[in-house]
Amino acid sequence: MAKKNAFYAQSGGVTAVINASAAGVIETCRAHSDRIGKVYAGSNGIIGALREELIDTGKESAQAIHGLKYTPSGAFGSCRYKLKGVDQHRAEYERLIEVFRAHNIGYFFYNGGGDSADTCLKISQLSETMGYPIQAIHVPKTVDNDLPITDNSPGFGSVAKYVAISTKEAALDVASMCETSTKVFILEVMGRHAGWIAAAGGLAAEQDGDAPHIIIFPEIAFDKAKFLKRVKETVQKNGYCVIVASEGAQYKDGTFLADAGTVDAFGHKQLGGVAPTLAQLVKDELGYKYHWALADYLQRAARHIASATDVDQAYAVGKAAVEMALAGKNAVMPAITRGKGKKYSWTITEAPLAKVANVEKKMPRDYITKDGYGITAACREYLSPLIQGEDYPPYKNGIPQYTRLKKVMVPKKLKNDFKVSK
Amino acid sequence: MAKKNAFYAQSGGVTAVINASAAGVIETCRAHSDRIGKVYAGSNGIIGALREELIDTGKESAQAIHGLKYTPSGAFGSCRYKLKGVDQHRAEYERLIEVFRAHNIGYFFYNGGGDSADTCLKISQLSETMGYPIQAIHVPKTVDNDLPITDNSPGFGSVAKYVAISTKEAALDVASMCETSTKVFILEVMGRHAGWIAAAGGLAAEQDGDAPHIIIFPEIAFDKAKFLKRVKETVQKNGYCVIVASEGAQYKDGTFLADAGTVDAFGHKQLGGVAPTLAQLVKDELGYKYHWALADYLQRAARHIASATDVDQAYAVGKAAVEMALAGKNAVMPAITRGKGKKYSWTITEAPLAKVANVEKKMPRDYITKDGYGITAACREYLSPLIQGEDYPPYKNGIPQYTRLKKVMVPKKLKNDFKVSK
Repeated sequence: MAKKNAFYAQSGGVTAVINASAAGVIETCRAHSDRIGKVYAGSNGIIGALREELIDTGKESAQAIHGLKYTPSGAFGSCRYKLKGVDQHRAEYERLIEVFRAHNIGYFFYNGGGDSADTCLKISQLSETMGYPIQAIHVPKTVDNDLPITDNSPGFGSVAKYVAISTKEAALDVASMCETSTKVFILEVMGRHAGWIAAAGGLAAEQDGDAPHIIIFPEIAFDKAKFLKRVKETVQKNGYCVIVASEGAQYKDGTFLADAGTVDAFGHKQLGGVAPTLAQLVKDELGYKYHWALADYLQRAARHIASATDVDQAYAVGKAAVEMALAGKNAVMPAITRGKGKKYSWTITEAPLAKVANVEKKMPRDYITKDGYGITAACREYLSPLIQGEDYPPYKNGIPQYTRLKKVMVPKKLKNDFKVSK
Repeated sequence: MAKKNAFYAQSGGVTAVINASAAGVIETCRAHSDRIGKVYAGSNGIIGALREELIDTGKESAQAIHGLKYTPSGAFGSCRYKLKGVDQHRAEYERLIEVFRAHNIGYFFYNGGGDSADTCLKISQLSETMGYPIQAIHVPKTVDNDLPITDNSPGFGSVAKYVAISTKEAALDVASMCETSTKVFILEVMGRHAGWIAAAGGLAAEQDGDAPHIIIFPEIAFDKAKFLKRVKETVQKNGYCVIVASEGAQYKDGTFLADAGTVDAFGHKQLGGVAPTLAQLVKDELGYKYHWALADYLQRAARHIASATDVDQAYAVGKAAVEMALAGKNAVMPAITRGKGKKYSWTITEAPLAKVANVEKKMPRDYITKDGYGITAACREYLSPLIQGEDYPPYKNGIPQYTRLKKVMVPKKLKNDFKVSK
């Protein structure tokens, strides 16, 4: 069998550890250079393949690739670009396979969430029918933790750790000032469709009475009166109230709190945000002094406090993806499977992409307390192992020394350009 | 000389390392138990003294006190409560001295910013005239870095490190997605009156072209047209633009950008924020997709990534305060003095409170680049040593194990209560 090259691309929102998966893929390919040729990476994700903009990872030193293990973001660039159905966008799929053929690419490693699992599956199927079969392996990644089959998604554990620690730290701050200052603090976190990240804030509470006192989940319809009552009770009991709110918080009718419809001085509609909306509500109805924070990208980029478990798993799924490819597998995803023992353990198993693509894992209702404002013991048991361990990056001059790649482009072989509709 | 007790209180906004100063004070007092009796701490700061709510730190284990060195927030509680002039509020000063006398307190260690330095000075003066002389020592603390004489203020270095690292991490995230997603990212940081914290964001840039590309200082009048031009140029050149904006950003007429006057759907005035205001401006005028983050308390509570230099200095000023008291000093503050050599070094020196109280240290104009959007080499040389070194707290189950105090109250001795006007 002639040696084929490999193609790796990052997809969708990046994480603190997606580059660790890249390191897993590239280092494992290098270890099998007898069977895998060059490893090309898509510049800005799948768009790089469509445009034939391929980065030659072979030009990067072993040290630079190793550095990916502790570098947040998508080092090769990522993109939000969903390939639609084959019927509507056949030209795109054909272009991909054309580029793969031109560069002798036989292995496709696609690092992303549910959408990219779907793309991966389609590439695998279509390449077969087009007479240039490609082994397509999906490498799981998403801070949303919504991929099925795998026990958890690489990227989530580190956001979870960041949110738990930030909640704990900010709560200590508020607690120490509440006698004369801020009484209510709100941290808004990611999670448009599911409350996994907000739930992680609950790990900050280690003893009875600890913050957060209220978690606002997208899964639970927001009830204004009930919320205000709880805030008031909490302030009266503890002197302060700490709230972790998911950006996906919504009313019973499905309206997002973030879209509450504020307008600026010029009459422009403001995008708002859940935290300021809740803060204003607390101020107007209860009169408490408030503060709020919006972590935004900080939470998913916070490699400085990544979960060691998450880093290890992210690397492992990258490594396993290559091993599966070498074992002749196709249209599969390495999944994390939790051991059954009392002590947390995990192994990598194989999931067929047909069962992964377009399936969203929801948070079980029994992970949320009956009152809708907290996490249950079952949820804590699930989440806690995922944030275990610290894996600090190296520092110089007080700043993490994240890897910088050379990103040498592979000379193009095709004559025609491909226009990507952004 | 009969052995006197000591009183310690935390004042104003708390920091990631103010408790390290508390550890410095308490451990040093304990080491001199032949000369200093009990160490009492004000519950919720100076209010605790006014109310005769004193915490007996002697009831805390050596381990718990040592744990203060790596615990953020104000472990004994802090408050925003400024004692006014002696003429208007003589009753408050007299009450303090009454409480100190009742508990045989001869040493007053007040841990705060400019206001508390002023209070400290007045206590020292008034106690003398009232026939119960108290040695009042100010322990410097403020994330704003605006105390005079001392080269820097404990608390600032850790916020600076947090902001520099967060800027770097978020910038990598934006860079990797900018081809199809967010082009402009804004991080809003603290600093109502001075741009020290925003300036620290500049440390994220280690090479030419690195983020942040624009820093918005309170010291430089905000020029909308010039700002938009710079954002556009930056996006055209780099593909994205990262902005660090001080909450104190203001127009030429002194209006804060944060008070730009947005109203919600009900016509209520919104408090806004600099980041969303700038984001909306960018969206309206340039059409770029944006994201923004507001770190709020997260930045000053982030003990998980505190600067080791900052922790060491915070502890050292606490220790030095006690040593100065033992040396018979009064109305002084331990100041950090930078060594003259090329390699950064520092020592603790003595500053008279008369020269500290009510003096605000401004950021030198030559620390800001001519265009008003960046930091100069001189600024970098000043700031860089302050964020050096990592001093990680201990972890258990993925969460920092911050110290928890018992806070045993000292029995009251005075019959009359004192009503504090909040």
